[in-house]
Amino acid sequence: MRIALHLLGIGFDCREVDLITGGGEQHAAGYLAINPQARVPALVLDDGTVLIQSPAILEYLAETTALPALLPHEPIARARVRGLAALIACDIHPLNNTSVLSYLRGDLGADDAAIAKWYLHWIAAGFAAFEQMITPAPFCGGDAPGLADVMLVPQIANARRFSMDFSAYPKIMAVEAACAAHPAFVAAHPDRYAPSA
Amino acid sequence: MRIALHLLGIGFDCREVDLITGGGEQHAAGYLAINPQARVPALVLDDGTVLIQSPAILEYLAETTALPALLPHEPIARARVRGLAALIACDIHPLNNTSVLSYLRGDLGADDAAIAKWYLHWIAAGFAAFEQMITPAPFCGGDAPGLADVMLVPQIANARRFSMDFSAYPKIMAVEAACAAHPAFVAAHPDRYAPSA
Repeated sequence: MRIALHLLGIGFDCREVDLITGGGEQHAAGYLAINPQARVPALVLDDGTVLIQSPAILEYLAETTALPALLPHEPIARARVRGLAALIACDIHPLNNTSVLSYLRGDLGADDAAIAKWYLHWIAAGFAAFEQMITPAPFCGGDAPGLADVMLVPQIANARRFSMDFSAYPKIMAVEAACAAHPAFVAAHPDRYAPSA
Repeated sequence: MRIALHLLGIGFDCREVDLITGGGEQHAAGYLAINPQARVPALVLDDGTVLIQSPAILEYLAETTALPALLPHEPIARARVRGLAALIACDIHPLNNTSVLSYLRGDLGADDAAIAKWYLHWIAAGFAAFEQMITPAPFCGGDAPGLADVMLVPQIANARRFSMDFSAYPKIMAVEAACAAHPAFVAAHPDRYAPSA
């Protein structure tokens, strides 16, 4: 979401929600009043309207912001980019988020090694398909970054935290390199948004 | 996808992909040539173009079909419906699909009881939030069925297979009742699409 806001030139304040400490700030009354689903991110508009779910927020930003948009104009090209984005948003990310890893650990007795294996399994399965489906130009959807790139880059960062071997994904690595050189991705980097004291 | 095609009045042929028998037909060369990700559904257009990922396919159908569309016109209302749809498409469905249940059973040693508990845990977590977020009118997004209803109904059917207790979700049940009386949902019902002999 942060990358998209930077890409579209939309100013915003960023409030961190600590998902770990004390069982997770997302379950506190203050955040539940914003998002009853107790998940991040949520986007609070200037008039107080709250939008949830990254795919819905990104579509909203794409359709209410002047160009550059996050999606191509032609319907088949849009479907292709949305398909790549959904591959990550539906088939990789949900399996690797904090609530799922906690369940694996607490209810199914998975240890660190089993968690790491699970984490990398779903990224590898998704990336193998993603790799076959893209022709970096240099971004997933053409010469400007869009919805698929915005979904992909944070997932690569997650994979790095688990020391993933990326040698089977040269095209994905090429997209990452193009994104790393783009000012919106630089500006949105997590290092610039460390939790406030 | 089938419900949406019926809602929009688009004719189609339905080819079942057996995800279970013999390790799964989705991994056979014939299907991988259609979708390298080895997942269903895929939509093959008349010109042979293949679209994958339900959210991307549904957005394509919504934006290339004359009214009735699957989404409201106003951007905030669209974001709300897309948020509900993504809650199911991202935070419920991916955790309960065949590949995940196989991994839990094979790699993490989960037995039937543990699988059922996992399955219902993610539906209950998602439905609790979904229930708070809707005001059936009688559908999730207003007086016509749309993207959120199309995602919700198959998930209710999945929950029924695991004998879920729906007493905490009266609004979701009201939406289901409205959908059950709608001709598109009747026409798309799985009973009418049993695997061909």
